Amino acid sequence: MPFISKKGFAMPESPIRKLVPYAEAAIEAGNEVIHLNIGQPDIETPEVALQAIKNYDKKVIEYSHSAGFLSYRKGLAKYYQSKDLDVDYQDIIITNGGSEAILFAMMTCFNPEDELIVPEPFYANYNAFALEAGVILRPITTYLKDSYALPPIEDFRELINERTRGILICNPGNPTGYLYNEEELETLRKIVLAQDLFLFSDEVYREFCYDGRDHHSILSLEGLENHAIIVDSVSKRYSMCGARIGALVSKNKDVMSTAMKFAQARLSPPTLGQVAGEAALNTPDKYFEDVKAEYLSRRDILVDGLNSIQGVTCPKPGGAFYAMAELPVDSAENFCQWILDSYSYKGHTVMMAPAEGFYASPDLGTREVRLAYVLEKDKLKKAIEVLRNALEEYPKTLEAQSSAVDVRAI
Amino acid sequence: MPFISKKGFAMPESPIRKLVPYAEAAIEAGNEVIHLNIGQPDIETPEVALQAIKNYDKKVIEYSHSAGFLSYRKGLAKYYQSKDLDVDYQDIIITNGGSEAILFAMMTCFNPEDELIVPEPFYANYNAFALEAGVILRPITTYLKDSYALPPIEDFRELINERTRGILICNPGNPTGYLYNEEELETLRKIVLAQDLFLFSDEVYREFCYDGRDHHSILSLEGLENHAIIVDSVSKRYSMCGARIGALVSKNKDVMSTAMKFAQARLSPPTLGQVAGEAALNTPDKYFEDVKAEYLSRRDILVDGLNSIQGVTCPKPGGAFYAMAELPVDSAENFCQWILDSYSYKGHTVMMAPAEGFYASPDLGTREVRLAYVLEKDKLKKAIEVLRNALEEYPKTLEAQSSAVDVRAI
Repeated sequence: MPFISKKGFAMPESPIRKLVPYAEAAIEAGNEVIHLNIGQPDIETPEVALQAIKNYDKKVIEYSHSAGFLSYRKGLAKYYQSKDLDVDYQDIIITNGGSEAILFAMMTCFNPEDELIVPEPFYANYNAFALEAGVILRPITTYLKDSYALPPIEDFRELINERTRGILICNPGNPTGYLYNEEELETLRKIVLAQDLFLFSDEVYREFCYDGRDHHSILSLEGLENHAIIVDSVSKRYSMCGARIGALVSKNKDVMSTAMKFAQARLSPPTLGQVAGEAALNTPDKYFEDVKAEYLSRRDILVDGLNSIQGVTCPKPGGAFYAMAELPVDSAENFCQWILDSYSYKGHTVMMAPAEGFYASPDLGTREVRLAYVLEKDKLKKAIEVLRNALEEYPKTLEAQSSAVDVRAI
Repeated sequence: MPFISKKGFAMPESPIRKLVPYAEAAIEAGNEVIHLNIGQPDIETPEVALQAIKNYDKKVIEYSHSAGFLSYRKGLAKYYQSKDLDVDYQDIIITNGGSEAILFAMMTCFNPEDELIVPEPFYANYNAFALEAGVILRPITTYLKDSYALPPIEDFRELINERTRGILICNPGNPTGYLYNEEELETLRKIVLAQDLFLFSDEVYREFCYDGRDHHSILSLEGLENHAIIVDSVSKRYSMCGARIGALVSKNKDVMSTAMKFAQARLSPPTLGQVAGEAALNTPDKYFEDVKAEYLSRRDILVDGLNSIQGVTCPKPGGAFYAMAELPVDSAENFCQWILDSYSYKGHTVMMAPAEGFYASPDLGTREVRLAYVLEKDKLKKAIEVLRNALEEYPKTLEAQSSAVDVRAI
């Protein structure tokens, strides 16, 4: 029997995957599991997009251009222009979700063993794409106590060596919800220009910024035309994760013509998803006002609720729909398993993502979890209630366990 | 300005891409271009699939399971079972078209520098996926004079070395339309077992076999449970190339659990395409009878027409919807450019794919072209008329050119 590849062996599993059997067991035991572990919003997809699918009247579902429908790219360029970003349709390749855009960007820009600096904690699948492209991710740690703000410029300088070829940020961030301010972007701009690096920015949560703060895209940074590459997606913006439509955007013509070769090899992005994505460009402003207001009140319920629990710390995120929280436990992973496996409160339990998988450095995030506030407010309130009680109960269980062990040890 | 990657630089362009500007010029000059160069059928997508899209009534276009809808995988398993293939739903991962299935298979099974033997001419994008995965393609040449039959087993043995990890076939073949017979598959079975290799088979044209011949899947070969991996797709079967739905199918559990990690990293295959693909499983048999009859008569018009032109040789393909033809010219590429650029017959010209790009060995296929018979019969007849006249005219043009050069040379 032939062996699988080293790369396949090394590919990381999803950080929440090992909890799935415990969640299934909880459901089987008759409990309702409140899923705070994944970013699948319950928000409705805009009606214009759903209607476009219903009205699809072609007789053949054909390939599109490898870069996506011309009309869609032109429409998307206008969307960026409406955000004061200088983007032409030729600066856009439509991809199979943001995922493919990241992979294309890595394969286009980096050779195997090249290093890419990423503030950690970061979206766990970056590890997978880096492994596929042979790229080494070099984490630069951000801390809960600083609300995950970007470290000072000196910390970056320490990490940069002759193999460093780029920096990747997610803004606003998954898993932290951190929203970069103009000063931080200016810091990145300086580093990137000084070292001639690529700057990748995953801006798929662009629409979701709170407390009156604006989103600043790296495409607005002066002099970065040849350095800046953004990864975008319709998944979260229009709550249509299943459309699998993303985009790679850059003014660097070499990057775009090279990425086009990767795009041509896989023929075209999904036609039906593009129909939905293009129609979604006509989503009324009211939709975003409502969705943002909804996420904002969910955020406040979740974050204020978490901070009201003794021993829990949760910085208030400025964007996206995730929050990181430190729990008064030794191992968040054990706790996440226990709460599914051995605990319920009034017939409910909670699934969370242990944060360790979002860190590349060892032993970080062991007491942290990521929570997504993509569920309706009542569920979030219930989740807080479950967590509050679980965190009271958990130490007693541990004590009981350790006494039991003591007895056996005698 | 930072440089792009070596891989990006080395990525091949589509073999027909350089002809695109000439086709555009032909259209601008007022000519109609008959596109025999691409496999985008004009056949209608089954009504059940189109209707399923129109009836899509979910309010949120959600992610699916990373391996695809469970119901779709179960339905697809039944489809294979109806072909007498022992496939369970757990042996299937739904992918972004056949393209992603090939890439997943390569990344799962091979380390960089591992060698994969492929009968040439082969589907040009295999080069791209191999490059992305770092795999070396080792071509084993098949010849037009043999109608592209598989070479004898000794030729394979000569190619096999300590780096050889697999064999990849396309059955029926793109670009040759070659349909493997049972003996050939038995030969492959023996080699694969003797050398403990993976056997990949791209079977996306499975439905299109002609002249009463049956398709033989590698999944039916005894003792290959851990070696056989098939790549499949709905693109051609149901004429829905734009759905971007394919599948990776194998009984090898290590392969499937590893490929699943690649699948999880990109989250999920397109939801709307899956809706269409799942519905298409209920396509009535009549659809395939009609479509096959249509392709068969198109094949005969094209192939018989080509062979009726002096100096043209075109073996009759047993499957798919491509034919390879040798033309009485020194350079098929120059001829393909000339016919777009400088020739038209009654307002029509023809776009073909020069075959050189389908060979990995240098200097092969220089006089060959690939033609797709995916257009209606009248267009194919017109294309033959254009070609017949063009091939009469072309030598005169060359003579005139060379005289002109002679004059200037004096």
